[in-house]
Amino acid sequence: MLLHLSTWQEVEAYLQRSQAVIIPIGSTEQHGPTGLIGTDFICAEAIARAVGETTDALVTSTLTLGMAEHHTGFAGTISLKPSTLTLVIHDVVRSLAKHGFNRFFFLNGHGGNIAVLKTAFTEIYNELPDVRCRLGNWWASNEMYKLVRELYGNQEGYHATPSEVAVTMYLYPDSIKSAPLSESVNKDSRIYSPEEFRKRYPDGRMGSNPSLATIENGKQIFELSIKELVEQYNDFLAEV
Amino acid sequence: MLLHLSTWQEVEAYLQRSQAVIIPIGSTEQHGPTGLIGTDFICAEAIARAVGETTDALVTSTLTLGMAEHHTGFAGTISLKPSTLTLVIHDVVRSLAKHGFNRFFFLNGHGGNIAVLKTAFTEIYNELPDVRCRLGNWWASNEMYKLVRELYGNQEGYHATPSEVAVTMYLYPDSIKSAPLSESVNKDSRIYSPEEFRKRYPDGRMGSNPSLATIENGKQIFELSIKELVEQYNDFLAEV
Amino acid sequence: MLLHLSTWQEVEAYLQRSQAVIIPIGSTEQHGPTGLIGTDFICAEAIARAVGETTDALVTSTLTLGMAEHHTGFAGTISLKPSTLTLVIHDVVRSLAKHGFNRFFFLNGHGGNIAVLKTAFTEIYNELPDVRCRLGNWWASNEMYKLVRELYGNQEGYHATPSEVAVTMYLYPDSIKSAPLSESVNKDSRIYSPEEFRKRYPDGRMGSNPSLATIENGKQIFELSIKELVEQYNDFLAEV
Amino acid sequence: MLLHLSTWQEVEAYLQRSQAVIIPIGSTEQHGPTGLIGTDFICAEAIARAVGETTDALVTSTLTLGMAEHHTGFAGTISLKPSTLTLVIHDVVRSLAKHGFNRFFFLNGHGGNIAVLKTAFTEIYNELPDVRCRLGNWWASNEMYKLVRELYGNQEGYHATPSEVAVTMYLYPDSIKSAPLSESVNKDSRIYSPEEFRKRYPDGRMGSNPSLATIENGKQIFELSIKELVEQYNDFLAEV
Amino acid sequence: MLLHLSTWQEVEAYLQRSQAVIIPIGSTEQHGPTGLIGTDFICAEAIARAVGETTDALVTSTLTLGMAEHHTGFAGTISLKPSTLTLVIHDVVRSLAKHGFNRFFFLNGHGGNIAVLKTAFTEIYNELPDVRCRLGNWWASNEMYKLVRELYGNQEGYHATPSEVAVTMYLYPDSIKSAPLSESVNKDSRIYSPEEFRKRYPDGRMGSNPSLATIENGKQIFELSIKELVEQYNDFLAEV
Amino acid sequence: MLLHLSTWQEVEAYLQRSQAVIIPIGSTEQHGPTGLIGTDFICAEAIARAVGETTDALVTSTLTLGMAEHHTGFAGTISLKPSTLTLVIHDVVRSLAKHGFNRFFFLNGHGGNIAVLKTAFTEIYNELPDVRCRLGNWWASNEMYKLVRELYGNQEGYHATPSEVAVTMYLYPDSIKSAPLSESVNKDSRIYSPEEFRKRYPDGRMGSNPSLATIENGKQIFELSIKELVEQYNDFLAEV
Repeated sequence: MLLHLSTWQEVEAYLQRSQAVIIPIGSTEQHGPTGLIGTDFICAEAIARAVGETTDALVTSTLTLGMAEHHTGFAGTISLKPSTLTLVIHDVVRSLAKHGFNRFFFLNGHGGNIAVLKTAFTEIYNELPDVRCRLGNWWASNEMYKLVRELYGNQEGYHATPSEVAVTMYLYPDSIKSAPLSESVNKDSRIYSPEEFRKRYPDGRMGSNPSLATIENGKQIFELSIKELVEQYNDFLAEV
Repeated sequence: MLLHLSTWQEVEAYLQRSQAVIIPIGSTEQHGPTGLIGTDFICAEAIARAVGETTDALVTSTLTLGMAEHHTGFAGTISLKPSTLTLVIHDVVRSLAKHGFNRFFFLNGHGGNIAVLKTAFTEIYNELPDVRCRLGNWWASNEMYKLVRELYGNQEGYHATPSEVAVTMYLYPDSIKSAPLSESVNKDSRIYSPEEFRKRYPDGRMGSNPSLATIENGKQIFELSIKELVEQYNDFLAEV
Repeated sequence: MLLHLSTWQEVEAYLQRSQAVIIPIGSTEQHGPTGLIGTDFICAEAIARAVGETTDALVTSTLTLGMAEHHTGFAGTISLKPSTLTLVIHDVVRSLAKHGFNRFFFLNGHGGNIAVLKTAFTEIYNELPDVRCRLGNWWASNEMYKLVRELYGNQEGYHATPSEVAVTMYLYPDSIKSAPLSESVNKDSRIYSPEEFRKRYPDGRMGSNPSLATIENGKQIFELSIKELVEQYNDFLAEV
Repeated sequence: MLLHLSTWQEVEAYLQRSQAVIIPIGSTEQHGPTGLIGTDFICAEAIARAVGETTDALVTSTLTLGMAEHHTGFAGTISLKPSTLTLVIHDVVRSLAKHGFNRFFFLNGHGGNIAVLKTAFTEIYNELPDVRCRLGNWWASNEMYKLVRELYGNQEGYHATPSEVAVTMYLYPDSIKSAPLSESVNKDSRIYSPEEFRKRYPDGRMGSNPSLATIENGKQIFELSIKELVEQYNDFLAEV
Repeated sequence: MLLHLSTWQEVEAYLQRSQAVIIPIGSTEQHGPTGLIGTDFICAEAIARAVGETTDALVTSTLTLGMAEHHTGFAGTISLKPSTLTLVIHDVVRSLAKHGFNRFFFLNGHGGNIAVLKTAFTEIYNELPDVRCRLGNWWASNEMYKLVRELYGNQEGYHATPSEVAVTMYLYPDSIKSAPLSESVNKDSRIYSPEEFRKRYPDGRMGSNPSLATIENGKQIFELSIKELVEQYNDFLAEV
Repeated sequence: MLLHLSTWQEVEAYLQRSQAVIIPIGSTEQHGPTGLIGTDFICAEAIARAVGETTDALVTSTLTLGMAEHHTGFAGTISLKPSTLTLVIHDVVRSLAKHGFNRFFFLNGHGGNIAVLKTAFTEIYNELPDVRCRLGNWWASNEMYKLVRELYGNQEGYHATPSEVAVTMYLYPDSIKSAPLSESVNKDSRIYSPEEFRKRYPDGRMGSNPSLATIENGKQIFELSIKELVEQYNDFLAEV
């Protein structure tokens, strides 16, 4: 059930049977020469909606802007400051908690959001002690790590990874890009200022080889992530 | 050209020919018993993308959350506080200005965002004196007022209007809702606290009769708004 | 009844018969070569006190500083940032609401305050749901627009207007200024950064010809505005 | 020279001969059963204007709202939070520093503002290292302490003092109030929460006997304070 | 070299040979019935000073307050809000960067600080692009995990662990506490609001058995952590 | 009783007999060529702990960072902005008030903290009306002023004073520094920006001659301050 295609009376009816909601969150940031700028929220949105369908859960519209300060050296990246993103998360939860929602499952597509989401949760609990927030990173499960290792070995890297690019290829086959990728890529994962970031990772990739991505891989990864996140969501609901 | 389906190198190329960008912004809020919660951003997004196509402009992903504090008495409404929304707007402009963008056209679908956008622009100009922001409200032009008056007379109202509902019916024909609408509706337009709002406007409508909306109207309104906003955008580009 | 010339016990007595208060707000900003820097708050203060006398209402001291960022390129302009002004408004209302006031009529003399006052009201309602704020712009009524059109036609402009200058001439006949005014004046009304503002409007006027102002006009405008604002205030009190 | 009765071109001319400005600041707060709510800003304003006349200095409009949180238990008190007042002070200085002002003399009428002004100055110096701010409390000089001790002995107290009441009697003889004053008054000077304040000081006085105030005293005190503050202002100008 | 026992001229001399500094940070929070409230900062301080001695590095005074909101249900816990701690970290780095420091090694003793430190670093890099911050958690290295597993197996738990208690026993043998510890302990590690935390973890422990701690273990752990952190610090210095 | 060496259950027991707590606060800032950077918090900490021992009071860990913006021109100074320090103070009191503490005695070692502490107290009282905060500056009592005048006459000065240096010499005899001190020293006490400060007071001293300090003086001053502060603390406890 998609929040934006519902009426307030339908949401009231939903609240009779569940007080949980799924909130997809990603980022709008460079993903190397061949990755889409929307990669992080595209993945989060599609997986969140599929999880919502399987579990009959309400899914909000997607938070397309995340904390991407370190990528702002690349054209098209839009970043919310950590403090801004914290306030956004807080406002979202406060708004829905007012109506009776009390379990908030953030289905996240961007590593850079994790620390911010955690600090936001802390601020939220102080204001709303009966609320629980859970963070579900779509790429972070043992099964998924195993699959990705099988598919890409040590060429997965940390940013603009073949796995996320593959998912977007599967979801937007008309937007598959091609561009020359230098063979050597910095295998480092340290992040300092945006200027420093661009010097270390000149084409935006961090140790990854996205040319390994295929539509077929994308389907496989997408489906596994749905399975894993459905489990995590159900575990969250079942929690005492 | 959609930002989220582009690469950073494609955005760099775009900047060679234009430093302007269209940013759709709406709200996630109740729209009466038959209006979609996403109405405001659905309209803004579709119109922005059509304007972008016509004018070959870059369009960012949609800011789906707006300032909707007065609607938070209704389930499913998500509101950013005015101060939070101001920071979001500022962060969006700051990020893109770093890459060379200097004309920001906010294609807006929600009246409640107007005051906040204006104050945000002021804060932005202080930090970025070379930037210009323009607000384009899709429903606000003489031609559009004329059309809407012809179609709905004094039943257009102020919120959950037949005109915006018609546009969403045209865009999402599978999500057309039906629900009983009491014939009498408060014709007032005053807004105080959320609690007070719900008392004055118990089903969420403000003086409107959305049952007049049809898919055909929606198409007509949608197309006129594109025409009007293309003009406004071109005027913005042409401005000395 | 003027708050600053009363004792707290007199205010307590006032609260027995009314919970409404008038708050004059203006700005301290350049008004062209012949307009006083205090124009906006001088007008608001005088009209507010006259309205208060007519309606037997309590009038606070005047908020002489408004949101005038775009005028800061001209010497003597003092501007509160939008965020600062929002906090000031909030603190004023919070203080008085603690004593039982619940209707706040802001008698405003500056267009640049409008968006900020509206966003401040929203923040206030969230904290104080039983409070109502109303904005009364002294120049904004059909009768006034008519009079001003009769007096000045298309030479009224948008800033440093003959109408506001006339009111200050009437109120401060000893401070009437004369300075050369170029005949051509930018008829535009767009506002971007302070630097940009000064380039577009080099002597501070926006499309206006304040040399048309006379003391007699000032009296006429002043008296009409009192009549109009008394009506607006009474309407506010009568509102259910 | 009064800022609000000047034009921006007159201020530009003033800046040719002086970069100093006097800013009167007071408070809007209860002053016991017979003291005016505006006492603190009335005194600061009148003294500031007189000092300005003597020294040919520019005087801004008066900051009528100060930090009066502890008085908010009494009707009619309006208080800015310390953080709000800090921002206001900062905005005032930032605005005028942009035009070339660099010496800011705050002529203060309220003890509760002192700590806030000092912290504001610190924040200002970090942003504007070439600016200097000076605090002049009108009641605080050896000569004045001596005069007040002669006039009122140990009945001066800490708030709603005969000395400040006398000055307002001299300035506003039409607004002299009379009300019963209990003979016993708490001689303490401790300040905690507003609720606690009202319990300790039930009629708003802190150890004072304002019934000793006379118009003649007021004149004497007023004139001495002008003399003292003129000296302080000149000392500030002369400082290397 | 301890900052607080140095003069500013000695710090200037230090800057000739190194621009790096070690900043111990911990927390002031309950650590179960037998753990000291200062455990987290006691460990961080002692390890930081030992690392500083070995590497001839400057060590600041210890940030004894961390983000401990979830522990505030227990007497004596002092927590900085995430937003406050972010500002503190930022101020510390800004102050020292002004003198020429550019490598900031935070030697951390509290898991709850990690997300906040990371977001603070992001904010810092935006203001100070040439600065680098590194986080060294004393308990987090493969060697240390191995040792702790050998010593305590699955009784280490997540909070009030035998390993950190052992270190404090070694450092403060006069402050070793004894108190009854129930045998069963919640093995969960989920954290929501402070109220919820106290319900889940009624004596403050999270899955740990601190009665296993001994002074000898403490010495072993302390010495290993120094060895590991010296390596991390040297690696930070060596980084290109 | 030292908070950091206690368990939460011991703090709970303490609360049965007292709801008061002593919080040492100082600063980390240059103290001239021979003064320790930690001087202000070293003194506050040692005196606070001695007072705590005498009065059987709980003493928290020391706030080692204060408001020292004007000293940031000297290497090694770490300053919290006034707004940051205000938040820290507020968080400390809020945390402990949650457990039942209601009297907070800040034993302060730095003049620059005074204005900030006072504004913080105001903010705290608004949120926590039953709490009382008291400021005890260790150097500020008639007895102490007398002793210091006897010992150092007019060479005490305002910063890096012989009295505070003497106390640190007594407490840290191994860290006594020697450095050349120019005989002439600016006797001024005005403070503007950090840059201006360094120009006025080139070696960091403000009118002081710390070479007069001796260990014996330090002992004398230390012991007198304990006596004075014990009295102040007891007076605070006794206050109705």
